[in-house]
Formats: sequence, C-alpha cells, structure tokens
Amino acid sequence: MRFTFPLMALGLEVGMIVLFGLYVQYETEQNILQQLNTTKPADMGRFLELYPLFQDVHVTVFVGIGFLMTFLKKYSYSGIGINLLIAALGLQWGTIMQGVLDSYGHTIHIGVKNMINADFSAVTVLISFGAVLGRTSPVQMLIMTIIEIAVFAYNEYLVGEIFQASDTGASMTIHAFGAYFGLAVAGILYRSGLRRGHKNEESVYHSDMFAMIGTLFLWTFWPSFNSVFAEAGDKQYRAIVNTYLSLVACVLTTYAISSLLEQRGKLNMVHIQNATLAGGVAVGTCADMEIQPHGSMIIGSIAGIVSVFGYKFLTDYHEHAGSCTGFFHRNSTCWRSDYRFNSKDTYLGTAI
Amino acid sequence: MRFTFPLMALGLEVGMIVLFGLYVQYETEQNILQQLNTTKPADMGRFLELYPLFQDVHVTVFVGIGFLMTFLKKYSYSGIGINLLIAALGLQWGTIMQGVLDSYGHTIHIGVKNMINADFSAVTVLISFGAVLGRTSPVQMLIMTIIEIAVFAYNEYLVGEIFQASDTGASMTIHAFGAYFGLAVAGILYRSGLRRGHKNEESVYHSDMFAMIGTLFLWTFWPSFNSVFAEAGDKQYRAIVNTYLSLVACVLTTYAISSLLEQRGKLNMVHIQNATLAGGVAVGTCADMEIQPHGSMIIGSIAGIVSVFGYKFLTDYHEHAGSCTGFFHRNSTCWRSDYRFNSKDTYLGTAI
Amino acid sequence: MRFTFPLMALGLEVGMIVLFGLYVQYETEQNILQQLNTTKPADMGRFLELYPLFQDVHVTVFVGIGFLMTFLKKYSYSGIGINLLIAALGLQWGTIMQGVLDSYGHTIHIGVKNMINADFSAVTVLISFGAVLGRTSPVQMLIMTIIEIAVFAYNEYLVGEIFQASDTGASMTIHAFGAYFGLAVAGILYRSGLRRGHKNEESVYHSDMFAMIGTLFLWTFWPSFNSVFAEAGDKQYRAIVNTYLSLVACVLTTYAISSLLEQRGKLNMVHIQNATLAGGVAVGTCADMEIQPHGSMIIGSIAGIVSVFGYKFLTDYHEHAGSCTGFFHRNSTCWRSDYRFNSKDTYLGTAI
Repeated sequence: MRFTFPLMALGLEVGMIVLFGLYVQYETEQNILQQLNTTKPADMGRFLELYPLFQDVHVTVFVGIGFLMTFLKKYSYSGIGINLLIAALGLQWGTIMQGVLDSYGHTIHIGVKNMINADFSAVTVLISFGAVLGRTSPVQMLIMTIIEIAVFAYNEYLVGEIFQASDTGASMTIHAFGAYFGLAVAGILYRSGLRRGHKNEESVYHSDMFAMIGTLFLWTFWPSFNSVFAEAGDKQYRAIVNTYLSLVACVLTTYAISSLLEQRGKLNMVHIQNATLAGGVAVGTCADMEIQPHGSMIIGSIAGIVSVFGYKFLTDYHEHAGSCTGFFHRNSTCWRSDYRFNSKDTYLGTAI
Repeated sequence: MRFTFPLMALGLEVGMIVLFGLYVQYETEQNILQQLNTTKPADMGRFLELYPLFQDVHVTVFVGIGFLMTFLKKYSYSGIGINLLIAALGLQWGTIMQGVLDSYGHTIHIGVKNMINADFSAVTVLISFGAVLGRTSPVQMLIMTIIEIAVFAYNEYLVGEIFQASDTGASMTIHAFGAYFGLAVAGILYRSGLRRGHKNEESVYHSDMFAMIGTLFLWTFWPSFNSVFAEAGDKQYRAIVNTYLSLVACVLTTYAISSLLEQRGKLNMVHIQNATLAGGVAVGTCADMEIQPHGSMIIGSIAGIVSVFGYKFLTDYHEHAGSCTGFFHRNSTCWRSDYRFNSKDTYLGTAI
Repeated sequence: MRFTFPLMALGLEVGMIVLFGLYVQYETEQNILQQLNTTKPADMGRFLELYPLFQDVHVTVFVGIGFLMTFLKKYSYSGIGINLLIAALGLQWGTIMQGVLDSYGHTIHIGVKNMINADFSAVTVLISFGAVLGRTSPVQMLIMTIIEIAVFAYNEYLVGEIFQASDTGASMTIHAFGAYFGLAVAGILYRSGLRRGHKNEESVYHSDMFAMIGTLFLWTFWPSFNSVFAEAGDKQYRAIVNTYLSLVACVLTTYAISSLLEQRGKLNMVHIQNATLAGGVAVGTCADMEIQPHGSMIIGSIAGIVSVFGYKFLTDYHEHAGSCTGFFHRNSTCWRSDYRFNSKDTYLGTAI
C-alpha cells in the first residue's frame, strides 16, 4: 500500500510516454496540407492566433479550478495539489483518447486544438473531483481520471461526431457529464464507508478568500472557454458576447437570492463563489447562436437563481438525496452546487 | 428593510434586461458597414485583435481591483464581493448609458469596444467604492452605481466629444472623477453618522498579502489599460511603452520615500500596494504622446513620491480634512491614497 | 545607515532617467527600416503580435516569481515586496546593458523585444534572490541587481552572439547563471555572519498557499516564456508544445517521487511548488528543436525526479554543502531547489 501511489504515478507516466512515442507527432506543413483536403483549414498562423485563448483556458483549469477547490480548510493543499495532478495526467490521456477517435487510429498531429481539447477533458475529471473532494485518495483519483476520460472522449465523439449536436461551450459533454460522473463516484465511495471528516468539511475566512481567486479567474475567462471552439467570425463573436452578458446578469440574481435566503439578509460566500459561474455553464450549449443580448441575460439570471436555490434546497433537505439527480435532469447549470451538497449530504446522512 | 437589497438587485437586473431588449443588438456586417461611412472602421477581425487587451482590462477590474479591496481584515469578503456586484451592474448600466450617448439614441451594437468602455465605467464606481469601503451597505452601493455611471457617461461624453480633450488612459474622466465622487459620497455618509468600525479598519498579515494579488495584476496589466483605446500603430505603441516605464520608475521612488518616512527605515505595505500604481495613473492622460522614455520615467518617479507623501501627510494630519480636496486639485495621481485616508480620517474625526 | 536605502534607490532612479535620456528613444518607422537592412524584420504589427506573450512573461515575473517567494511565514512581505523592487530596477538597468551591447553603443530603440529581454534579465536576479531570501537587506539587493545584470548581459552576449549557442528558453544564461550567482552571494553572506532567523525559515499553511499562486502562474505561462524568442513558425510552435509536454510529465514524476521519499507516502508542498517547474527549465535549451513529443516528456519526467531527489538529498545531508555546486554542474533543472536548500543548510551549519 505504501508504494501504490508512487508506482502507479510513475507507471502511468511511462505508459503515456510510450503512447506518445507510438502515436503522437508534431504538426508539419505536410500533414496540415493533407488535413486541408478532408477537414477545416489549420495552419501555423492559426496556432499563434488561438494561443492566447488556449492560455486563457489553461489559466482557467490550473489557477481557476485549482483555487476554487481550496475552500475546505483542511483540504486546501489537497484541493490545489490533486487538481494539478489530475489535470496533468488528464491532459496526456485526453490527447491520446481524443486523438485516437478523431484520427481513426492514425498518427495524432499535436496542435493547439489538441491542447485545448486536452484541457477540456481534464476539466471533466476536475468537475467530478469536486464532488468527492476530501473523501478520496490520490490513487483513486488516478484511476478515476483514466476511466472517466476514456468514457468522456467516447461520449463527446458520439455527441459531436455521430449525433452532430451543437454544444459550443461543452456544457453537456463536460459540465453535465462531469457532474453526473462525480455523483456516481461519490455514491459508490459513500457506500464503501468513508465516514470521517465532519469538522474538516468547513471553510475558514482565508480558505474562502483563496477560493475567490479561483472564482474570479473562472468568471473572467469563461467567455474564452465558451468561444474557443466556436467558428471564427460571427459565431465566435457571439459566443464571447453571450457568455459575458450571461455571467454579468447571473451575478446580480445570485446576490439577490443569496441575500433573500440567508439569515438577516446576509450574503453567503459559497453562493458567490459558485452560483456566479452558473451563467457561463447555462449559456454554454447555445453560446454561439443568435439568442440576442437580452436572451443571454435572461439565461444567466435564471441560472443564478436556480443555482442558489439548488444549494439551499439540497443542503437543507439533505435526506432527499435522490432529488439531486432529478435536479440535474432539469438543468445542468448548477454544476458546482453538487460539490458541497454531496459532501454535506453524505456526512449528515452517515451521522444520522 | 429585510427585502430591500434582494428586491432592488432583482429589479435592477429586470430593468437591465428590458433596456438591453429595447436598445442593444449584436454587431453585424451590415451595421459595421454603416458605421464605416460615418465613424472609424471596426470589423470582426478587430474584435479578436482587441480581445486579449479586453481580457487584460477585465482581469484588472475583477481580480486586480477586487483583491486590492481586501486589505481590511474584517471586510475582505465585502471588499471582493461588493466589487464583483458593483462591476457586474456597472457593466450593464455603462453599456446602456455610453451607448445611448454615442449612438444618439439609436440601437446600440455591442462590440469589444463597448465591452471595454463598460469595464471603464465600472472602474469609475469601484474607485469611489474604495473611498467608502467598510462603511456602506450593498443597497447604497447599488444606488451609487446607478447615479455615478449616469454622471460619468455624460461627463466623459463632454470631455471626449464636446471638448475633444485628449485622455488616452482616462486618468481624468475615470480616476480623478471617481476619486472626487467617492470623497463626496464619503462626506455625505460621514455626516449621516456611520461611526462604528475603529478596530475593523485594520489590515492583518494575510489580508495585506491578498491585497498584493490585486496590486500585482493591476501593475502588470496597466499598460494594456492605458493603451487599449489609443490609435492603433505608433500611438498605441507609445501608450504601452510610456505606461510601462512610468510604472517601473514609480516603484523605486515609492520604496525610497516609504523607507524615508517610516520609522527605522522600514517599508510600508500600504505604500507598496498603492503608490506603486500611481505611475500608471499619472501618465494616463498623456500616455500616447511623444513624451520620450525618460519623460515617462520622470512622471512616474514624481507620482510615486507625491503619492507616498500624500498618504503620510494626509494620515498624520487627519484633522485637516479639507486639504484632501486641495491635494486632489493639484494632482490626480494618488487616486488610491484617498481610500485609507478617508476611512482613517473619518473615524478619527468622529472619535475626537 | 538610516538613509542608505532611500538615497540609493532615489539615486539609482535618477541615474536610470539620465541614462534613458541619453541612450533610449522610441522605435520609429525610420529606424525600423534601417534595422531591416541589417537584421531581422521588426515592425509595429509585430509589436502587438508579441504583446500578449510579453504580458505572459510579465505576469510570470511579477505575480509568478513574486508569490513563489512568499513561502517563508515571516518573509512573505519581503519576498513579494523586494521581488517587485529588484524587478523594477532590473528592467531599467537590463534595458540599458543589453541595449548597449546589442546596438554597439548607439541609440537604443525600445520595442517589445527589449521589454521582454529586460524581463529576462530581471528573472536572472530574482533567481539569485531566491538563494538569499530572508538573509539580505534591500540595499544589498540593489547592489546585487546592478552587478549581476551587468555580468549577465555580457555573459548572454558571449553565449548568444559570440559562441552562437542555442538557448531558446534561456535555461543556461538565465537559470543556471542565476542559480550559481545566488549560491556565490549566499556563500559570501554566510561568511559575513548573518546568523539569525532559525524559526523564521519555516512556512505556514497560508504562506504555502500563497506560494502556490506563484507556482501555478509560472507553470501555466512557462510555454510562453520558452517560446517568446523562438523563430516564428515551426520553431515557436515546437517550443510551446515541448515545454507544455515537459511540464505535464514533470508533474507526475514529482508527485511520485515526493510520495516515495516522504514519511507515510505523503506529498510535500515544497516539492509541488518547485519541482513541478523543473520540466520547464530542463527543456528550455532545446525547446525549439525536433526532440519529438515523447522526447520532451522524457526530459520533463527526469527533471521532476532529479529535482525532488535534489531537495531531499541536499536538505538531509546539509553538512555536505559542497555537493550543491557539484549537483548543479550535473544539471540545471533544479534551479529552485537551491532556494530552500541554501537557507536550511546555512542556518543549520551555523547552529552546529
């Protein structure tokens, strides 16, 4: 047991190096020209053009989600540390899995799009990680990363290539999928009896401040996240504007409902950290469409309201754990709300 | 009273959605071509070209100013939380107000320039917010945002369109205006008797570290802030270089004067957090002009010196509250210095 | 003594302004056309094209390295504060030194490349600063900055212009040079008897979290750092991809070895903060070459392993201080490992 984690981590890295050695090569002018015949144009100029958007997404994943995970006072190290571990493994494994499906088993030519896709697959696992934060070991997380990304890549391939569904900001394939997967894993782990940790599942003043670093970088860069894969031109422009407006509107309704539901009209930091981001997820699927500026603001407003109610409702009536799944069937906006709900629900459930 | 804030926040968001529904539309090729006949060129390519600069400004507003507001140990939550609320409301209201004035009441076509302008109008309110931090309620902040942005938009329209004054980095229209407005509001609130909070108006070790996150992002991205609206080409280049050099020079004089004035030659974190940014404000108005590299360094150096003296002088001789206004008449560089001055001055004044 | 620092800082700034007045001018179309005849093309368009990369590097220097220096609980202020001071002086002095050597004493025309180069020279001093953190005065740091950058600029000129060596990510000229220089300075200061500070050379929970802000921004933006001076096109593309993959692989081996060497298989935050970055340094020199994706992953994996072993080995056998130099002769990857090693080694050495 003592050497399980080091050996598994080393073994996985060796495996990744072997897979990259077999399947992954640089992009060259040659293979870009080959691609031109079959798919969309992609040249070196496009690389540097998309690179700033890639960096926005990269900051979102490592700084944004990383610090969002630090809210538990005893798990700040784990939150940010395991986030980095999962993301680093997920990037490599995601490159392989998505590349194999996209290239039908041929050589993968790594470019900025693969790198962004790899970040996206890492995000999926990180969302699930949020649901089990503080109750899992690094070894379990390594296994979850390998399994979840394999399933995710196949699911995304189905949704995008076979069903040809529109999901610009990947709200369905990433956020809803990641949340469900995390809930399922939490359910399994709960039954297997991880029942300690009541007192540790709290935040303190400073851990909530660190979490705000995450929130603000996620909030700021979400328009990049939702628009990075939109078609250049009008669609990309709309994906940025719609996400921006949805997030802005979401802030006001989040604050309003938070104050409405909390004692003496106070604001709750948990809502501010999480529900303010619901607007970005909610508008994700249709971000590049002509839903009009006020349309995205309506979506964002509702997302904020639903998300805060979700927190409050699910936390207070923790015995109705089943309602959570039903809740998620009705909307995928409160993707983060499951995090704390699950932790609280589980330990209260076991305490009874 | 219990429901004032939630109802007002919801009401304002509903109002914004209605206004956006009536007046705001996407940019389309059609209306860009119409604009070409009358005003400056603006095409979709320009959107993505300016988008990284927009993101720099966006980080400045939400992460930079947000964390700069966390220095008070008991108001870190309020500092960063209300910052987000004001900015989100300000963005929407600023889009409407500036758009109405710029388009003479016609439909507003939202583009990256509107989004940056909206960030700028939010900044104005955030500067005023700094002057009243820890002494106001969220409801008051919502009201202040609505009033101040209306006045700001009209004032900026006067300065820029009617007087045709040059103010690239918006030092006058944003920083000086925001500081004055904040001082006025602080004066009004002071008389109305908010007299608690002595002990809470302090920083602790970690709250000062969080404030440094804000300082460093503001410092790093200030060249983007001052150059984003400069004319593409030579002027934009100069706006970046001049701001960069002014900020760099400002750091050394800030440290020197801070050590000179503090006991036993120590450095004061308040000076480092705020006076190092004075160079960016001071050079703002003339950032795109040919003031030469050493010219901007001289401006930055003086800004650092004046700003630290401003803190020290205004804090020590707190009874001469009137001097503050006179001080601001002579320079607009110590825009942040008013924050703590005001808080300290006010509570000391009431304590006497 | 009381006025040494303020007078020196002011005097240096005055000196910089005089030097900039004499030698530094804006870029103009004229001198760009002159340059075209002799060296590579560089136009205004290139300025804005490189500006986002410059900003990435700028964030790396001021936020990344700045917060990485905050890990010591009693020196968080000094870490981040002196980092800003050194960087601000280093930027100006580096512009002059590198400009004089590059332009053979003629007028320096400041452009985005000079600004990035200036950031790079500041990084060199900051690496050395890490080796003496908590044991030096600001005055000593000002002197070190002036001397080290002069030596660095000449050394870089030798390596790059005279020897024509390839060092895209500047691992040799910056990281190895900075580490050696810092070790030398630490050696000198140790002999001169700065023997206090045992208890202060520790981290606490929150100071380690602040350091993670630095780590994550360095980690995220390192591909920009290594690629910013690579030749546009294939080489720049490879510099980004190779650095990205090396860093990703480095994370897994760092975690594995950290868990292997620590008690009860726990992870050590010091390793996570520092060794995860070793991949970026290790691949720096050859980042733009065709080392293949799996090649950079192998380099990153080894860098992580060596770096964690370096920490553990050098910290445990602190009496063998001499081994450190030998260690660095064999690899330049554990550039940060010297930081804590040196501090711990020195105070334990003096305690004996």
